[in-house]
Amino acid sequence: MNSFIDSVATLDEQAKAMAMQRQNILTKPPGALGRMEDIAVHLAALQAVERPVINNVWISVFAADHGIAEEAVSAFPQTVTAEMIKNFARGGAAINVLAKQLQASLEVINLGTIMPVNIEGVRSEIIAKGTKNFAQQSAMTSEQCQQAMESGRDSVRRALQHNAHIYIGGEMGIANTTSATAIASVLLDIKPEKLAGPGTGLDANGVSHKARVIDQAILHHIRNLHTPLDCLIKLGGFEIAALTGAYLSCAHKGLPVMIDGFISTTAALLAEHMHPGCKQWFFFSHNSAEPGHEKMLDSLEAKPLFDLGMRLGEGSGAATAIPLMQQACALHNNMATFAEANVSEQSA
Amino acid sequence: MNSFIDSVATLDEQAKAMAMQRQNILTKPPGALGRMEDIAVHLAALQAVERPVINNVWISVFAADHGIAEEAVSAFPQTVTAEMIKNFARGGAAINVLAKQLQASLEVINLGTIMPVNIEGVRSEIIAKGTKNFAQQSAMTSEQCQQAMESGRDSVRRALQHNAHIYIGGEMGIANTTSATAIASVLLDIKPEKLAGPGTGLDANGVSHKARVIDQAILHHIRNLHTPLDCLIKLGGFEIAALTGAYLSCAHKGLPVMIDGFISTTAALLAEHMHPGCKQWFFFSHNSAEPGHEKMLDSLEAKPLFDLGMRLGEGSGAATAIPLMQQACALHNNMATFAEANVSEQSA
Repeated sequence: MNSFIDSVATLDEQAKAMAMQRQNILTKPPGALGRMEDIAVHLAALQAVERPVINNVWISVFAADHGIAEEAVSAFPQTVTAEMIKNFARGGAAINVLAKQLQASLEVINLGTIMPVNIEGVRSEIIAKGTKNFAQQSAMTSEQCQQAMESGRDSVRRALQHNAHIYIGGEMGIANTTSATAIASVLLDIKPEKLAGPGTGLDANGVSHKARVIDQAILHHIRNLHTPLDCLIKLGGFEIAALTGAYLSCAHKGLPVMIDGFISTTAALLAEHMHPGCKQWFFFSHNSAEPGHEKMLDSLEAKPLFDLGMRLGEGSGAATAIPLMQQACALHNNMATFAEANVSEQSA
Repeated sequence: MNSFIDSVATLDEQAKAMAMQRQNILTKPPGALGRMEDIAVHLAALQAVERPVINNVWISVFAADHGIAEEAVSAFPQTVTAEMIKNFARGGAAINVLAKQLQASLEVINLGTIMPVNIEGVRSEIIAKGTKNFAQQSAMTSEQCQQAMESGRDSVRRALQHNAHIYIGGEMGIANTTSATAIASVLLDIKPEKLAGPGTGLDANGVSHKARVIDQAILHHIRNLHTPLDCLIKLGGFEIAALTGAYLSCAHKGLPVMIDGFISTTAALLAEHMHPGCKQWFFFSHNSAEPGHEKMLDSLEAKPLFDLGMRLGEGSGAATAIPLMQQACALHNNMATFAEANVSEQSA
C-alpha cells in the first residue's frame, strides 16, 4: 500500500493571529475564559477565518465484528454488534440522541458482522464477516485494510460535500477494546497489562485474561510489526482502520476532527504515527474511563476537554463535547470589545 | 436576623430509584455514560420525575461595588463594575452570549456601585454605593445584608414564576475575589495566603499584597466572626449576599442550581454552613483557575463537571455546563431500552 495521504493541510497563522488579537480586546480580563479562548483561536487557524463556527456537525459511525471475540475478551456476546447497528438505524442509541440534540448529520456504516444486517438507514460497505482472530493469524489482509481506510476516506468526502465544520468518527464492535489495546501496546511500547481495561464491563479476572490474550497475540506477530500499518493489519479492526483513514483524510483535506474515546484515540495515534502532524487537526473530547486512554493521550500531548467517566464509544464523548466548542465560538464571535462597550481596560 | 430559611426541600427517592432502574435498561453497558448517568439520576430525584428536563434556564447576575477596592487588590479600576453592568444591559458580555446560546432568561440586578448606572434593562435594587472597606470596618450592616439576601430570594421567585428548571446566579464586582477569599479563609480555617489568587489578573506581588490585606482584615474582625452570617456581613459583598440568599431559597423551594466559580462557590459554602443539606440542590459546573476554589469544592465534597481554566464569573462557567446537563437528560429520556431495541444484555 502506498502512503494513504501525501501531506497535511497547513494552518492559517494569520487567521490565528487575528483571532488572538480579538480575544485580547473582548470585555473580559485577558485569558479569563481559559481554554474556551484556545479552542476558538485554534479553530480560527484551522478554518482560516478570524471568527470560526461549528454549525454543521458530521458523524460517521463505523461498525464491524472482531475475530478476537472468540477468546472471551468481552462482557457482551458478539451478536450485539449487529443488534446495535439496527439500534442505530432505528434511532435508539446514545449517538442518535446526541446527534439529534446537535442537529448533526449521522450515518452508520456496516463494514461487516458475523450476523447479517438487513435494515434501511445503514450504509453497507461489507469487507468480510468481521476480522480473523488475531491471536492466531492476521486480523485482516492489507487489501481489506485499504478497503476499510477508503471507507473512512469516503465518509470524509461526504462530510465535505455537506459543508461540515467538524467531523466525528464513532465506532461499534464487540471486542474492539482488545484490538485497540493491542495496537496501543505496540505503538507506545507499553505492556498490555498496563493498558488493558474492562471495556464493556469485564471484572478483574476478565481484564487479566484479556491482557494475557493480547500479550500472546503480540508475541505471535512481533516479527511482522514493523510499521503502524502493520499493527493495523495484524491487530486491528475494520472500524479502527476506517477511523484511521478518515482522520488521515481530515488532516489532508483540512477538516477539524473531534476525537472520541479509547478506540478513536487509537486510530488518531495510528494516523499520527503514519503521518506526523495530523494531530494538529484533532480536538480531543474526553478522558475515557478505559485506563489505557490516558497513556495514549499523553503520547499525543492531548488535553481532553472533560473527564466524566464515559466509556461507551459510538462517538458519544465527542458529540458531548461539541456544545463547548460552539459556546467557545459564540463567545469569540459575539462578545463586545472594550471599545464597543466603553469598558475600561486593565490598569497594570 | 432570623434564619433565612426554615427547611431544605426533600429529594424524591422513588423518582431516583425509577431513574436508576431506567439507566440500567438503556442500550449501553451499565455505567458506560459515567457521570452523565449520575446527573440524570440526581436531577430526577430533585425534579421528582423519572425523566428530568432542563429546558428553561434562569440566570440572575448580581453586581455591586466593594469598599475593599481602595486597598489596590484588583487589576481593574472600580469603574468597571458600572461599565460592565451597562455591557450586560446592551448584550455584549460573555454571559449574554451564553444565555442567548441557551435561550435562557437573563436578568441583571444592580445592588449598588460607586458610579451611578442609568440604563434600561437592569433591575435597580440599590442598597448603597458599594460596601464599606472591610479592612477598616464592617463591609455592610445586618440590615443591608438582609436586603441583599432578599434580592436573591426575589430572583428565585421570578425564576419559579417563569417555570425555570435550573437557576444560575452570576456576579460582577471589582475586588470581589478579595471578599470571597476572606470569607472562605474564615469558614475553612485556611490562611489567606493559601487561598488568594490573581482574580482579574494580579501578578505575584499583587497576590501577596491581597493576601496580606485579607489577613489583616480578618484579624481586625476576628472577635466578631462567630457565625457564617457574621462573615458575610463583616467581609462580604452585596452580590455575594444576594447569591447566598438565592441559593438558600432554591434549596428551600426545591429549584436545582448550577453553581459557577470562585465567588458563587463562596456563596454556596455560606449557604451550606448556614443550613446544612442545601448542597444537595447544587450542581457544580467547573474548577475555576482561581487557586482557592479547589479547597472550597473539597470542603463541599463537590465534583465539578469540567476544568477549562475559566475565571470570569458572571455565571459564565455555569452557563457553559448547561448543555452537558441537557445532553444527560436527552440520553436518559430518549435512548431505547434493551427490550425496545432487541439488543442482548451483558453475558456475565
